[in-house]
Amino acid sequence: MKLVIIGGVAGGASAATRARRLSETAEIVMLERGPDVSFANCGLPYYIGGEIEEREKLLVAKPSLLRQRYRIDVRTRTEAIAVDRGRKIVTALNLADGSTFEESYDALILAPGAAPWKPPIAGADLPGVFTLRNLEDVDRIKAIVDRGIEHAVVVGAGYIGLELAENFLRRGLRTTVVELQDQVVPVVDCEMATPMTEALRSRGATLLLKNSVEAIHAAGGGLVLDLKSGDRLEAGLVVLGVGVRPENRLALEAGLDVGPRGGIQVDDRMRTNDPSIYAVGDAVETVDFVTRRPAQIPLAGPANRQGRIAADNVFGRESRYRGTQATAIVGFFDQTLASTGQTQKALDRDGSAYIKVYVHANHHAGYYPGAKPLSIKILMEPGSGKLLGAQVAGSEGVDNRINVLATAIQAGMTVRELQEVELAYAPQFGSAKDPVNMAGFVATNILDGRYPQIQVEELDGAAGAEAVVIDVRTPKEVAAGAIPGAVNVPIDELRERLGEIPRDRPVVAYCQVGMRGYMATLILRDAGVDAYNLGGGYKTYLLHHPASNDHV
Amino acid sequence: MKLVIIGGVAGGASAATRARRLSETAEIVMLERGPDVSFANCGLPYYIGGEIEEREKLLVAKPSLLRQRYRIDVRTRTEAIAVDRGRKIVTALNLADGSTFEESYDALILAPGAAPWKPPIAGADLPGVFTLRNLEDVDRIKAIVDRGIEHAVVVGAGYIGLELAENFLRRGLRTTVVELQDQVVPVVDCEMATPMTEALRSRGATLLLKNSVEAIHAAGGGLVLDLKSGDRLEAGLVVLGVGVRPENRLALEAGLDVGPRGGIQVDDRMRTNDPSIYAVGDAVETVDFVTRRPAQIPLAGPANRQGRIAADNVFGRESRYRGTQATAIVGFFDQTLASTGQTQKALDRDGSAYIKVYVHANHHAGYYPGAKPLSIKILMEPGSGKLLGAQVAGSEGVDNRINVLATAIQAGMTVRELQEVELAYAPQFGSAKDPVNMAGFVATNILDGRYPQIQVEELDGAAGAEAVVIDVRTPKEVAAGAIPGAVNVPIDELRERLGEIPRDRPVVAYCQVGMRGYMATLILRDAGVDAYNLGGGYKTYLLHHPASNDHV
Repeated sequence: MKLVIIGGVAGGASAATRARRLSETAEIVMLERGPDVSFANCGLPYYIGGEIEEREKLLVAKPSLLRQRYRIDVRTRTEAIAVDRGRKIVTALNLADGSTFEESYDALILAPGAAPWKPPIAGADLPGVFTLRNLEDVDRIKAIVDRGIEHAVVVGAGYIGLELAENFLRRGLRTTVVELQDQVVPVVDCEMATPMTEALRSRGATLLLKNSVEAIHAAGGGLVLDLKSGDRLEAGLVVLGVGVRPENRLALEAGLDVGPRGGIQVDDRMRTNDPSIYAVGDAVETVDFVTRRPAQIPLAGPANRQGRIAADNVFGRESRYRGTQATAIVGFFDQTLASTGQTQKALDRDGSAYIKVYVHANHHAGYYPGAKPLSIKILMEPGSGKLLGAQVAGSEGVDNRINVLATAIQAGMTVRELQEVELAYAPQFGSAKDPVNMAGFVATNILDGRYPQIQVEELDGAAGAEAVVIDVRTPKEVAAGAIPGAVNVPIDELRERLGEIPRDRPVVAYCQVGMRGYMATLILRDAGVDAYNLGGGYKTYLLHHPASNDHV
Repeated sequence: MKLVIIGGVAGGASAATRARRLSETAEIVMLERGPDVSFANCGLPYYIGGEIEEREKLLVAKPSLLRQRYRIDVRTRTEAIAVDRGRKIVTALNLADGSTFEESYDALILAPGAAPWKPPIAGADLPGVFTLRNLEDVDRIKAIVDRGIEHAVVVGAGYIGLELAENFLRRGLRTTVVELQDQVVPVVDCEMATPMTEALRSRGATLLLKNSVEAIHAAGGGLVLDLKSGDRLEAGLVVLGVGVRPENRLALEAGLDVGPRGGIQVDDRMRTNDPSIYAVGDAVETVDFVTRRPAQIPLAGPANRQGRIAADNVFGRESRYRGTQATAIVGFFDQTLASTGQTQKALDRDGSAYIKVYVHANHHAGYYPGAKPLSIKILMEPGSGKLLGAQVAGSEGVDNRINVLATAIQAGMTVRELQEVELAYAPQFGSAKDPVNMAGFVATNILDGRYPQIQVEELDGAAGAEAVVIDVRTPKEVAAGAIPGAVNVPIDELRERLGEIPRDRPVVAYCQVGMRGYMATLILRDAGVDAYNLGGGYKTYLLHHPASNDHV
């Protein structure tokens, strides 16, 4: 068996090492365009910021290791330029000396990755304007920061954009983030990104939402950016982090099937339409695990597992990829935002039905010092209560909860089962009723018709216009901020003051997080009032109506 | 509907508030023997140590809140002394004035909890000798510590014992922990407790294993303890944390079924053999979720959920308890140990077949600063690969992994599915191949017959005696400690030195964590050697053979 692997980072490196573990005798050739294989691409921003001090640490497995321990014939700075499927031959270009050569294969694994997308704007290729993909990029960016500039501009407020912003701020740079959408981390739902938006601002980043860079000019040793808003920005450095595109040229030229979003199409064995050719990682179109629809989700974890699965299949082992859930997490200083499965916006886009639930709780027992607030949003299928997606925001314990919810989605769990998830509890680690259980409780009450819920969007719309809104918190809480027009009737006075509540109009009750509002709703319903609880209470309201609503 | 609830802490309080949310009109009476309801029993040790500064914080829901918001007729310092099932009447004793009264019920929920067990030794009732159950206990213990003593003795190295030891050490006390078993945290497997044992010693606690207190005497204002070992200890304070016993007297006297371990027997609706009487929490016998066998597992999370389920059923709602997994976690300063599902010792006790896998990995990407080592042990069913249990030890990320594994057990996942768990990865939060995935990879290789594994116990036994042991680490690693008698052949030289390896005897390869040892095993097998990898490598060996083996 001779296996050729094109690309030596996440998916390619995993495929190569797994292949060797499956066969001591196979010939394994790895062709990598860049100078490095198996580097820590997710660590690149932190090397710029100095959190990761040694460049060496970013090199997870060097070519020498792959050669010596795994007997992989690693050829770096070698670009595969053509695949002849009939002859089963790859033509490659040695970038060092310009020579080309042919390499035959019995099986071929394509792991070319995805390239940062450069928007078609004037000046995108100027010195000082970068994208971030590999160590060469990071070396150039870091050299400019080390040299000393005053202002860095990050275009795109996605995962990499936020990580870059954190690291530029760590380096003491004035940092501006320009984002076309009206929110940061556009893949998650807008309101769940609110705490992250606030973190960006509180850490001193300038955030320009609903804006974009239309042109970049060189000026006086630096750069000047023309924004869509008409404003101009001077910058010492611009990094474009506006998405990636699958590297599909080789696949297209070889006549392999490529999806509408550019991903190489594969079956659940990671095999392309050519039975001798597999493809893995950011270059492929996979299946969304929840919707079973084709999806293009560039993430390191799935890439690694796909590489492993492709190698398994090359060596005749039964191994299938179950699809990608898009579990992702981003930190910005001490703020964390994570998502798994479907978002509300994705479900809306597909016209899929869902019910959503917000829970706000402490990341561990409130009576133990250091408890930090956590916001969880879950999306479930009406009727069955099957968990479709979840998002978590907070500063501690976000990874823990998103991982539990990701596992629950993989298992096809319903919200009823979330009630019964038995998580670890000691006061410094969790709660007897974990926030995940709480989400299960609320969602199950809704499924069972015991939880008349109204969402902030509905309150903001026609339903809200005709409703009486009752704030059941304490006057002290109300004084710190409340929904405009709400009447304060504290929960513990509600039963005595039922006479004040109108019977001829819908009534919306709310509290801080939804628990007292729920009790109030039940009391009101028992008294014949057409009452609804505002899901997740005032905290959810604030996610939708952030205090600082100033976009620029 | 008139519902009487006996016991007002975890299970009782959850039942009461859930009941009110299910019915605004029901009469709900709560009888609690102590002065407090719904207090944070899991926080008690931390109040002694001063981590939790305000006593007030331990009172999660006060009687006034339950009365005002939930209209629960809370009677504290009121002990239920008899249940007349025929008349459906509870007789209760007012501990304040000694009067008794009768309370009728339509439904009764027993939530009396479990009492700390006092071993039958002389002096167990002396002043200065305590158990820890409630705020009155903690007030007395804290008063003695505040007054100033030099030496505290904790009897029992279970969860509460370790938490007490941490807090006595925080208060600057010399602290001795006496444990009858040969390990700390006896509910987990011995080797997985090794890091915790080392943490106790490194933090300055004196740990006396395989020892016990045989008598306690008052002497000179303090206490003197006679130990089984013949040693004597002087102490200013002794806390007995050697387990709890279900409070079943009322149930027994009422003729309710009680299991062999003393737990009140209930069905999956939490109903006793009397259809009007339910029981929840530490007093009941439930079902082990994995084995489906009766189990007595006192934990706060299950107690809370059981209370909720009992209330559901009282009000005719379909709600079933799925059994208890025994997910638990304990911290001792920065060391954490957690467990879920079956342990090896429990499986051995039951004569159940299993395969075990150890994985040692960093809690997040090793290239990002602050990565801490994590040890995971999983137990799976042979053939199916169904996950039976897991234990995790480390200083960071333990809660995260045990929660994922607990969710996986609930979902009935196999180790094949663990390979594909899509967890959140950014370098400060995890790894592209999370330790949980790694455990899945190793376990699946074993299931598939691709991973010839030998365990430390086997190496220590007859199998090891005839085997040649090859250490495939670097000479530098070997110099820092190795298995006695092992021959060093670094993995990267192994293919060239195959001639040195005997073909007539089994060969055990090992490295630090098992990865290079696995590769070495594959290379050796390909060369015709009868090779086995030591599961989890030298790190697992050290768990079984701790450096400091001195059990006093």
